[in-house]
Amino acid sequence: MSLPIAVLISGTGSNLKAILQAIEAGRCDARVAAVLSDRSKAKGLELARERRIPTEVVRLKAYEDRGAWDAALAERVASFDPGLVVLAGFMKIVGPAMIAAFPSRIVNVHPALLPSFPGTDGPGDAVAAGVRVSGCTVHVVDAGVDTGPILAQAAVPVLPGDDRDALHARIQRLEHRLLPGVVHAVASGALELSDPPRWRDAPGADAELLYPAPQ
Amino acid sequence: MSLPIAVLISGTGSNLKAILQAIEAGRCDARVAAVLSDRSKAKGLELARERRIPTEVVRLKAYEDRGAWDAALAERVASFDPGLVVLAGFMKIVGPAMIAAFPSRIVNVHPALLPSFPGTDGPGDAVAAGVRVSGCTVHVVDAGVDTGPILAQAAVPVLPGDDRDALHARIQRLEHRLLPGVVHAVASGALELSDPPRWRDAPGADAELLYPAPQ
Repeated sequence: MSLPIAVLISGTGSNLKAILQAIEAGRCDARVAAVLSDRSKAKGLELARERRIPTEVVRLKAYEDRGAWDAALAERVASFDPGLVVLAGFMKIVGPAMIAAFPSRIVNVHPALLPSFPGTDGPGDAVAAGVRVSGCTVHVVDAGVDTGPILAQAAVPVLPGDDRDALHARIQRLEHRLLPGVVHAVASGALELSDPPRWRDAPGADAELLYPAPQ
Repeated sequence: MSLPIAVLISGTGSNLKAILQAIEAGRCDARVAAVLSDRSKAKGLELARERRIPTEVVRLKAYEDRGAWDAALAERVASFDPGLVVLAGFMKIVGPAMIAAFPSRIVNVHPALLPSFPGTDGPGDAVAAGVRVSGCTVHVVDAGVDTGPILAQAAVPVLPGDDRDALHARIQRLEHRLLPGVVHAVASGALELSDPPRWRDAPGADAELLYPAPQ
């Protein structure tokens, strides 16, 4: 049976779209059980509605404080009973209630090769640092910011003349292949989200998902 | 005229060998003017002697303190009038006298994707951190440890089951292609060692040198 996942977004949902397309193409054995957002205007919600996937908006401002918001978000996500929670361009830090509700079951995609360039502007920080290689990281979400165990990474070149946006676009194209690959690896059992996480097989058929060539 | 370089080593000199082979194959327009070491037993000195390249040993213990050693090393390197100083597995930190004698003209190869994992054990630290991508970096040497401007980087996968030595071996194979590539880029003028350094051309013919595929 396909793995039910909840996808959390804040913006256009390009990573959600990549997951949906991978599922529809038979490359990702998951089912998007719900899409949740902290922003009612997140364009990605439309992608879900088009497919009659349930959506929810849980706005920080609707709650007394961050803790109350975090608890409400955990409650709403849990109502869909997902086997995996995917932060796909979700721009808020999830709190202790979320992490307690889904221990080692929340993954995030970050536009840098962690541990380099955590935080809100991985591509901008990479360009400013003058690195020649950057990439993206899918990791388990823990209490820190971009500090949880790394599940998968992929590299892209930083080309002379790249600005933040040019690099970010190149990284995102890779995210759109890496993130569905990791969801599929969890769904298929190739990747166990134990603590620490464990790849059960050396990359064979999955190698292209795990180490996609930059395009 | 080929760029005269001084190569500093501490061990087997595998990166020196890669440079010599690239020169002999016509892929690197440089000439090794001298090989210097802090260890009289560095096996790489033999590679130089076989080719009748001058060698020097400048041992830290032969001097009163680090400053005197650094000044002596700078004096001995300068006697060969190199256009570029290459630290190729040189396990000592060069000091202010070296940096003042060759401003922005000393490059080092480091077995990690800086700014991740500076210091003495890049491969071991990468394995311990659980990253899935690592690599190597050629950078300009400044007063810090592995902090100078980055010139080139290349990435390798970290495979499940890799230990420090397995990863280090994979990284070194890439170093042996990246470092001669950077030396050639300096020799050909494609890379200007100004402050900050500047690639004069977007990677065209040099792309394979700058972004070699892992093997």
